[in-house]
Amino acid sequence: MRTVIGVMGSGRPLPPAAAATARHLGSLIAAENWVLLTGGRASGVMDACSQGARVAGGFVVGVLPDVDTLRASSALDIAICTGFGDARNVVNVLSSDVVIALPGGAGTLSEVALALSARKPMIALGWDPGAAARAAGRIIDADTPEAAIEAAKDLLAKGLK
Amino acid sequence: MRTVIGVMGSGRPLPPAAAATARHLGSLIAAENWVLLTGGRASGVMDACSQGARVAGGFVVGVLPDVDTLRASSALDIAICTGFGDARNVVNVLSSDVVIALPGGAGTLSEVALALSARKPMIALGWDPGAAARAAGRIIDADTPEAAIEAAKDLLAKGLK
Amino acid sequence: MRTVIGVMGSGRPLPPAAAATARHLGSLIAAENWVLLTGGRASGVMDACSQGARVAGGFVVGVLPDVDTLRASSALDIAICTGFGDARNVVNVLSSDVVIALPGGAGTLSEVALALSARKPMIALGWDPGAAARAAGRIIDADTPEAAIEAAKDLLAKGLK
Amino acid sequence: MRTVIGVMGSGRPLPPAAAATARHLGSLIAAENWVLLTGGRASGVMDACSQGARVAGGFVVGVLPDVDTLRASSALDIAICTGFGDARNVVNVLSSDVVIALPGGAGTLSEVALALSARKPMIALGWDPGAAARAAGRIIDADTPEAAIEAAKDLLAKGLK
Repeated sequence: MRTVIGVMGSGRPLPPAAAATARHLGSLIAAENWVLLTGGRASGVMDACSQGARVAGGFVVGVLPDVDTLRASSALDIAICTGFGDARNVVNVLSSDVVIALPGGAGTLSEVALALSARKPMIALGWDPGAAARAAGRIIDADTPEAAIEAAKDLLAKGLK
Repeated sequence: MRTVIGVMGSGRPLPPAAAATARHLGSLIAAENWVLLTGGRASGVMDACSQGARVAGGFVVGVLPDVDTLRASSALDIAICTGFGDARNVVNVLSSDVVIALPGGAGTLSEVALALSARKPMIALGWDPGAAARAAGRIIDADTPEAAIEAAKDLLAKGLK
Repeated sequence: MRTVIGVMGSGRPLPPAAAATARHLGSLIAAENWVLLTGGRASGVMDACSQGARVAGGFVVGVLPDVDTLRASSALDIAICTGFGDARNVVNVLSSDVVIALPGGAGTLSEVALALSARKPMIALGWDPGAAARAAGRIIDADTPEAAIEAAKDLLAKGLK
Repeated sequence: MRTVIGVMGSGRPLPPAAAATARHLGSLIAAENWVLLTGGRASGVMDACSQGARVAGGFVVGVLPDVDTLRASSALDIAICTGFGDARNVVNVLSSDVVIALPGGAGTLSEVALALSARKPMIALGWDPGAAARAAGRIIDADTPEAAIEAAKDLLAKGLK
């Protein structure tokens, strides 16, 4: 089975620097030959990271909150349509070997918390999920996409996959 | 349709003071003739708050993560068995007119975040969900069960039901 | 915990005789002091059965496919909002001590199948779910609401609750 | 986005002929360069069809009812862990462009019904889902894996994707 890295983050339009970070992270995940898993929609981190992975030749799975692909990113190889709304956030984290969370809103924070609840390896890239999240489980901090990839490699090597 | 107040919080064994707070909150919810909704299990805030409501003559609905009632609190009037694990946290917040969150771990934090994502009125009783949560939506702070009830009344009166 | 009887069936507008059957079944469930659980919407069997139970003083829980109560029956005491679409059919059957299925379409047939998969006691009232369903589990046939109630009593007495 | 064919059927140990049919169907799906989607477990049609696709060089996605991959088929490229039990059946059908159902029990029948409810193109291979299912939506019959593939091609060509 292939290694799956879940990338979570804001679903809103991104400032240029945040979009570049998400795209770059996607390309690095593709370069490791890992499958990228996102929330699948054509917006925010989901889309930017997927586009970055796609351009770099990676494989992208989107786990959509929707019953169809009308709002799906054009960079997906496979869309998983759940029709579950925010409850698909649980699927995102359970299906990932490592979760990398970029800055986001309530949905992203829920994915951080759900990942901790499921004891999934969790990397926060460029933001602070806060003391309540840190008290609930281990969060590894990364400042750059490269550092996040290194942290993910370490976690996978430690047999956390 | 009856007003439903969702109470979230730690599922682990509670120190006596925390158990007393949860029980008292349950009794106050029952006194308002509101339905209490919890995660339904026989542990932590779920059980203590349900027992408090039950003793006070209230009506208690438990939305279980499980497919059956083997782990359900004895204080439930009705058990909703979802079999969804943590994804039932979404049901908890969507089914509540107001959500009151007591201190807890990753599961509770996910419910705070999911409630904010669903734009549900959210009251934090006796703890701080953190800056990331507050940036994601409005959280009303309460220091006592009585203050939480007053805040809930205000929210319901403002037509947020 | 109270006994919960789940009633499934067509969500479309009902001919008068079918509506009368569903309403009558609801009133009989209320007369037994059982909680009625339906799919919660303001249409078809869900609404007719709920109205029948409500008028007879019963307690009605609706497990909605929706994130809110905009399409809910006016006869519900409590609405469980799942936001899960057809996946809430699983919740309906898991939360019921006995499932009674009236004639319906694909959604109803899925509930019959999901109930059999969960080994829930299943009564078909006034229709034939077919050989494939019968091969998958035990289905008790009833011709009238009164016969369905008697079958449910038998099942509950046999400790199937 | 790649074309996804969902194959459903019994999760129990298969007689040799049924296993051969499922394996052969998997290999034909792979030969069309379609992605195979199954319920993901290491048993029954899920496993046999996945093994057939894998040996033929295909790509296999398993949508598991479980929170982890402990019971997953060894032939999966990607596992989607839902933790939803039978509610993942909804994900299976919503994520498939065409659903092919082999003989099975209650779970398979629920997937047929859920596919019809979602208006997904549905092919029954070698069995009869029954009059109640046929009344609920269109089911195309196929006697052999080759016929099922031809029917799927026709459905996809008609723009049902």
